[in-house]
Amino acid sequence: MTMASDIQRLEARLTLLEDQLAIYQVINGYGYAVDGLNAEAVGACYVENGVYAVGDIGNIDGRDAIEAITRDAGHRALVAGGCAHMSTVPHVVIDGDQAVATCHTMVALHRDDGFVIGRLSASRLSLARQQDGGWKIVHRQNYLLNGDPAASALLGELKTGPTHA
Amino acid sequence: MTMASDIQRLEARLTLLEDQLAIYQVINGYGYAVDGLNAEAVGACYVENGVYAVGDIGNIDGRDAIEAITRDAGHRALVAGGCAHMSTVPHVVIDGDQAVATCHTMVALHRDDGFVIGRLSASRLSLARQQDGGWKIVHRQNYLLNGDPAASALLGELKTGPTHA
Amino acid sequence: MTMASDIQRLEARLTLLEDQLAIYQVINGYGYAVDGLNAEAVGACYVENGVYAVGDIGNIDGRDAIEAITRDAGHRALVAGGCAHMSTVPHVVIDGDQAVATCHTMVALHRDDGFVIGRLSASRLSLARQQDGGWKIVHRQNYLLNGDPAASALLGELKTGPTHA
Repeated sequence: MTMASDIQRLEARLTLLEDQLAIYQVINGYGYAVDGLNAEAVGACYVENGVYAVGDIGNIDGRDAIEAITRDAGHRALVAGGCAHMSTVPHVVIDGDQAVATCHTMVALHRDDGFVIGRLSASRLSLARQQDGGWKIVHRQNYLLNGDPAASALLGELKTGPTHA
Repeated sequence: MTMASDIQRLEARLTLLEDQLAIYQVINGYGYAVDGLNAEAVGACYVENGVYAVGDIGNIDGRDAIEAITRDAGHRALVAGGCAHMSTVPHVVIDGDQAVATCHTMVALHRDDGFVIGRLSASRLSLARQQDGGWKIVHRQNYLLNGDPAASALLGELKTGPTHA
Repeated sequence: MTMASDIQRLEARLTLLEDQLAIYQVINGYGYAVDGLNAEAVGACYVENGVYAVGDIGNIDGRDAIEAITRDAGHRALVAGGCAHMSTVPHVVIDGDQAVATCHTMVALHRDDGFVIGRLSASRLSLARQQDGGWKIVHRQNYLLNGDPAASALLGELKTGPTHA
C-alpha cells in the first residue's frame, strides 16, 4: 500500500512542524500572559508539577506557584510601571513526546526616556506532549547572562542538526 | 474513501501551519519594510481599509496613509539616524479566514554608544485571509507599555490552547 | 492518478514549511551557539566556503574562520562579561534550493544595572539546501543600523508576497 504509507510519512512530517509551532506558542505566549496578569494562561503553559528554575533567584515549583507570579506584589509593580517579558525564536529539538527548546528571554522596563533591559537570560525548556496533542513546559532553567558561566554553558549545549532528534 | 478523507484532513492541518507562518511573515516583514522605506511592501501588509491604531498617538486609517509613513519626515529622520522596528514571535489564533495575533513591538534607536529602546508596545493584530491565500492586517492596536493599563489588558486577553479556535 | 498527485502537491507544500522552520533554526541557533562558545554548532550553520560580511568590520571568509569566532579573545571577553547575540523572526523567501532571509540581529551586553544593546544590524542571509535536506548559510551581510544608508537599503529590498518565489 504505497499511498497509505506515503500518507503516514507525510503525517509524521506534518506533526513535527505542528509540534515546533505549538512550542513557539507556549514559550512566547507565556510572556504575553504574564505581562497580562492572566493566571490561567500562565498556568496553562506548564504541566501541573512543572518547575521554573531561575539561576540567581531560586525554583518556582508547580503550576499553582507559577500562576501565582501574576498575583505577586513585585511582579504587579513591574506591570504597573510598564514591562515586557520577551523570548527570542526558540531553537527546538523534538524527540517523540519530549522536546528541548533553547532561547534568550528578557524583561524590558519602562523608564522616563524609553525602555531598558532589566534582565536577560539564557533559557532551556523541557516540554512534553500532552494527551490532547498540545505541549506544556515540564522544566525551565534560566541563567542570567551576567557572566555566569552556567548561562554560556547552557547555550553551548545546543544540539545541531534537524528539528527532530 | 478513507484515503481521500485522510488527504483532506492532512491538507486542513497543513493550511493551518501555512497560515501561521504567513502571519509571521506579514508581522515581521512590516518592520523590515518600514525601516527600509519600501512603501509598497509596507502597504502590502494591510488590507485597503486597514487601520493602524496607536494608543498614545492616534489612528492611521487606510493602506495609503499607512504606506505614507515611509514618506513622513519624522519617520525618515529615525531611519537616517538608525532605527529598527522589531516584533517578537506572535502568538496566533486562527479561526477560519480570520486570525488574531498578539506580540510585543519595539523601536530601537541608534545613540553614540549603542542603541536604546525608544518605544515598546503591546500589539494585537486582526488579520484576514485574502483571495490568493495570503494574509493581511485588518486592524492593529498598539498600546505603549508605559504603565497604561490598556497595554496589560490587551496582553491578558490572549487565548490559550491550540492555534485554531 | 488524482490521489498520487494530491500527495505530491501536499508534499511540496510541506517541504516549503519545513524549509522555513529549518531556516529559523539555523539563523537563531547561530546566536545561541556563538554565545555558548560551541565551535562545531557555529560552523554547522555555514557551508564550507560561507562568508559572514560585517559592513563596518570586514568579511570573515570560510567555515573555519567563522568557527574561530568562538576562540577570539574579544568574543570571549564579551561572553565572560555576559552577552546575547539575538535575531528577530526572519522574513524568508524560498526559491527551490536557495533562500533569502532578512532580519535584525543584535548584541546585548551586561552592565551593572542591566543590559544595553551594543550593536544592532540589518541582516540578509543567503542560504542553500544541503544534500541531507537541511539548510546552511552561504553568505550573510550585516550593516550596522547607525544611519548607514546601506542598512536601510538592505531592509527595503525585502520581497513581498508568499514564502516561495
